[in-house]
Amino acid sequence: MTLANRPTILTGDRTTGPLHLGHYIGSLRARVQLQHEARQFLLLADTQALTDNVGRHQKVTENVIEVALDYLAVGIDPAKSTILIQSQVPELAELSQYLLNLVTVARLERNPTIKDEIRLRGFERDIPAGFLTYPVSQAADITAFQATHVPVGDDQLPMIEQTNELVRRFNNIVDRQVLVECEAVLSPVTRLPGIDGKAKMSKSLGNAITLGATADEITRAVNNMYTDPKHLRVSDPGQVEGNVVFAFLDAFEPDAAQVDELKAQYRRGGLGDSVVKRVLNERLQSLLEPIRARRREYEDDRAEVLAILRSGTARAREVAGATLSEVKRALGLTYFEA
Amino acid sequence: MTLANRPTILTGDRTTGPLHLGHYIGSLRARVQLQHEARQFLLLADTQALTDNVGRHQKVTENVIEVALDYLAVGIDPAKSTILIQSQVPELAELSQYLLNLVTVARLERNPTIKDEIRLRGFERDIPAGFLTYPVSQAADITAFQATHVPVGDDQLPMIEQTNELVRRFNNIVDRQVLVECEAVLSPVTRLPGIDGKAKMSKSLGNAITLGATADEITRAVNNMYTDPKHLRVSDPGQVEGNVVFAFLDAFEPDAAQVDELKAQYRRGGLGDSVVKRVLNERLQSLLEPIRARRREYEDDRAEVLAILRSGTARAREVAGATLSEVKRALGLTYFEA
Repeated sequence: MTLANRPTILTGDRTTGPLHLGHYIGSLRARVQLQHEARQFLLLADTQALTDNVGRHQKVTENVIEVALDYLAVGIDPAKSTILIQSQVPELAELSQYLLNLVTVARLERNPTIKDEIRLRGFERDIPAGFLTYPVSQAADITAFQATHVPVGDDQLPMIEQTNELVRRFNNIVDRQVLVECEAVLSPVTRLPGIDGKAKMSKSLGNAITLGATADEITRAVNNMYTDPKHLRVSDPGQVEGNVVFAFLDAFEPDAAQVDELKAQYRRGGLGDSVVKRVLNERLQSLLEPIRARRREYEDDRAEVLAILRSGTARAREVAGATLSEVKRALGLTYFEA
Repeated sequence: MTLANRPTILTGDRTTGPLHLGHYIGSLRARVQLQHEARQFLLLADTQALTDNVGRHQKVTENVIEVALDYLAVGIDPAKSTILIQSQVPELAELSQYLLNLVTVARLERNPTIKDEIRLRGFERDIPAGFLTYPVSQAADITAFQATHVPVGDDQLPMIEQTNELVRRFNNIVDRQVLVECEAVLSPVTRLPGIDGKAKMSKSLGNAITLGATADEITRAVNNMYTDPKHLRVSDPGQVEGNVVFAFLDAFEPDAAQVDELKAQYRRGGLGDSVVKRVLNERLQSLLEPIRARRREYEDDRAEVLAILRSGTARAREVAGATLSEVKRALGLTYFEA
């Protein structure tokens, strides 16, 4: 991604739980960097979270603040990035509604991301309509903020394709360039595994280290990390591949040479799990200590957090409102304008 | 329908063309009566019209004013009824979005009205998502205005069922009565045929008499009406069933005894088509003359029409906004409230 022309980034999280180290590596760290170079909108996606959390709205709404705290804790600067609450920007629902006419049900059902997610959630034929159509809402989010770049995992590429299809379709119908196509920015980092060695770190799987974890929780999590089950004695040669401790060192230890050295020693034999875990624990403690401290500060000043969200949401409404006005003007839905 | 407790009615029209005598008999006449007894919201359903008019947005938006003129021309009193433009009440899109999570795709596909309409429009598998989900938007329209009564044709009963399912589902999830169930009010009048004898009068079929038709257009339409093709000579016995002129007399001539007398004479033989047509023509002329005149007046004062629509839409936004606030409060989407 070239940042020469100050691109606009749209990204965010479903508000279903506090964020964890997987989010930090996968997206948050990059966002903290990008906010200096790009116009960045961070979406607290409560509306989207509701599409597959019917009946669990309390969980969704309570976590809006939690995720906001995580953003602020890792160093998202509300003066540089716009943090907004999706449900408080009604322009997004309105834009969604117009885009919904431009895609067929069959096309939505063919979306590979949606197919996977439907299978994961066990929806089968009982797919909530709001869930099947959420890629359209996502396209509305992206286009409302005229995002030029959207950071995604490779499993999310079909969402970007879908968005750009809608953009082209809309512009074609109104015969002018109203909506802007976007580009996927693939995350360069591989996915962080859970501490149990499962492919994905996830709060609901209980294998995550959250950003607000206490020092004890971090130590306990590191001690419980899945390593090489065949590496029984310190003198045995150990395996680095699939070893969660090394996956974490790769992700969090900036001194790559030191990590390589540890790996070599571990492979040869003579390096105990407890030693490597101690190295990782120190690294994570020093990473998370200031994050936790900042998180606590904001936790104690909820009014300030709400003020940040209110002001970010207001800014977001201006931008989304301008796009929506263009969309409605292009469709002729401007009866009351002079 | 008992009007004792001043019910709230939600009704309206897709804005795809000016209204005609079929609308007058099927709904407009009743609305003019009901506005004295009920709180009535009349929806100029441009957003809904867009769901199956992609690329024809100009037709949809231009006809918003045409339909509004028809309303005012037949005697809808903006001081008694609230006329609103659907696309200008964003609360409806927002409410729709929340209801969309409460219904499955399979349930929407089973809706018999939608099934019929999909067949009629030849959509087959290429159903626009916005079209499949429009019953949800309709439920949003109905519930936003807390409508207790919705006038429908019997082909629209599944829409009311769908709405009430969503109401119960929502209230159940938030564990309180937020949305109100509604009752279908079946139109007592049979459908007016087209002047060509086809079952349905429709502008696109070219067999309609619009409410703004000139005196000449009315006369021409009556003269072209399908009668009994075997009734060749005045002295021949004629058939009344399927005879459009008599269907119209049944609908528009208040003197039922006179109509019965004409029918008897026609059946016996000795009554020419031209005579019956003259009777009908006089009746339609006297019905439509004041309507046409009032329509002209409003046509000449477009600013006044816009002012009426602006004020109706503002009133509608207040009501819909209040419902939406309750919905969002029930879901916990009220982060910025004290």
